[in-house]
Amino acid sequence: MRIGELSKRTGVAVPTIKYYLREGLLPPGERTSPNQARYDDGHVQRLRLVRALIDVGGLSVAKVQEILATVDSPDDDIDKRLGAMQRAVLPALPVSTHPEMQDAAEQEILAMIRDLGWRHEGRHPAVTALGALLVTAQTLGHTRFLDHVRRYAAIMETIGVVDLDYLAGHTELDQVLESVVVGTVLGDSALLALRRLAQTNESAKRYPRLAAAEDVEVGCDPDE
Amino acid sequence: MRIGELSKRTGVAVPTIKYYLREGLLPPGERTSPNQARYDDGHVQRLRLVRALIDVGGLSVAKVQEILATVDSPDDDIDKRLGAMQRAVLPALPVSTHPEMQDAAEQEILAMIRDLGWRHEGRHPAVTALGALLVTAQTLGHTRFLDHVRRYAAIMETIGVVDLDYLAGHTELDQVLESVVVGTVLGDSALLALRRLAQTNESAKRYPRLAAAEDVEVGCDPDE
Repeated sequence: MRIGELSKRTGVAVPTIKYYLREGLLPPGERTSPNQARYDDGHVQRLRLVRALIDVGGLSVAKVQEILATVDSPDDDIDKRLGAMQRAVLPALPVSTHPEMQDAAEQEILAMIRDLGWRHEGRHPAVTALGALLVTAQTLGHTRFLDHVRRYAAIMETIGVVDLDYLAGHTELDQVLESVVVGTVLGDSALLALRRLAQTNESAKRYPRLAAAEDVEVGCDPDE
Repeated sequence: MRIGELSKRTGVAVPTIKYYLREGLLPPGERTSPNQARYDDGHVQRLRLVRALIDVGGLSVAKVQEILATVDSPDDDIDKRLGAMQRAVLPALPVSTHPEMQDAAEQEILAMIRDLGWRHEGRHPAVTALGALLVTAQTLGHTRFLDHVRRYAAIMETIGVVDLDYLAGHTELDQVLESVVVGTVLGDSALLALRRLAQTNESAKRYPRLAAAEDVEVGCDPDE
């Protein structure tokens, strides 16, 4: 198909498609004349993926470039490619505001992981992130935050099972790689949206008076 | 204390503190002379909260202004203030790339919420967000995404319980409001970091060969 048809099928404007072509987010079409190229269904799918990552996942063009480079890598080492992709779609790490407290906090997180019996290799970036969150909570005087994270962790263990089931449903390598990207980016957003709904539900169950008031999603009732 | 001491106690540079004062993120100190003001422990706590939201939560200064305006509002209606705050700390909503498919997707999400027996009022922004995610997954050909979200939802119900327990531990109104902010912002980051660790754990259990390879966090093994 021509670029106009590609635009029509995906809803992405032609100048935007040209921009993605220049930035390498979309592989070039097959050149049919000096000024024209032909695109195929692979371009349609790739364009939809790019839009999903940018519009829905909120990723930057640079981040999408990094992720797609891993998807497109000719490297046969699937382990390496999956690892690189996982790192590329990691959410921005929180910055520790108190570096001198960071190490002790990470030790607490590692002890929690040990208590859970979770397998892990080396110092995962998520441990650094959780350490930074714990330090922040501590400096704010929220001393119960670690217990809160422990309760979260016990629940999130099952999310890991659901996530791996999702990947296991795909057999083609390209599909597996795309599923990691889609499952991670869309899954993060879905979890946070579900958290809000779960809070609303639990709040309505605990505080029926608040639930009757409009506009309240999470509440507690200091009068009772 | 003087501004220098406030800077020392919080680790925030004096010019940054002055910027926050101008932007209203920090209430003015008590003026002691035309060029000097005195600050108290309330300023220390507020400054730490501002840094947590910006550095760790990744929120913009404008977003923090919006949240703090609710915390500081003289409005006695706690329901209204909690509702406004919940909305202010909502993550950015994904933009639907296919508006014509959005309504049907939201109906699917509402049906899921009904099946779960969750209480909710009206059209929650999270329903719109989940609808947009579902549309995106559908256009990418990921037809199993809704089942995936259903499995997530059943798990996230317990996260709502944990979150409301966290709030219930505070009795002072100021503490409750601050806990909503801290619990929501730090909690979102904590959940996503725990998701990565839970994936690593589950992946290592399922695919021991991959777990032995360095740098791999989530994997599947197409050779087996």
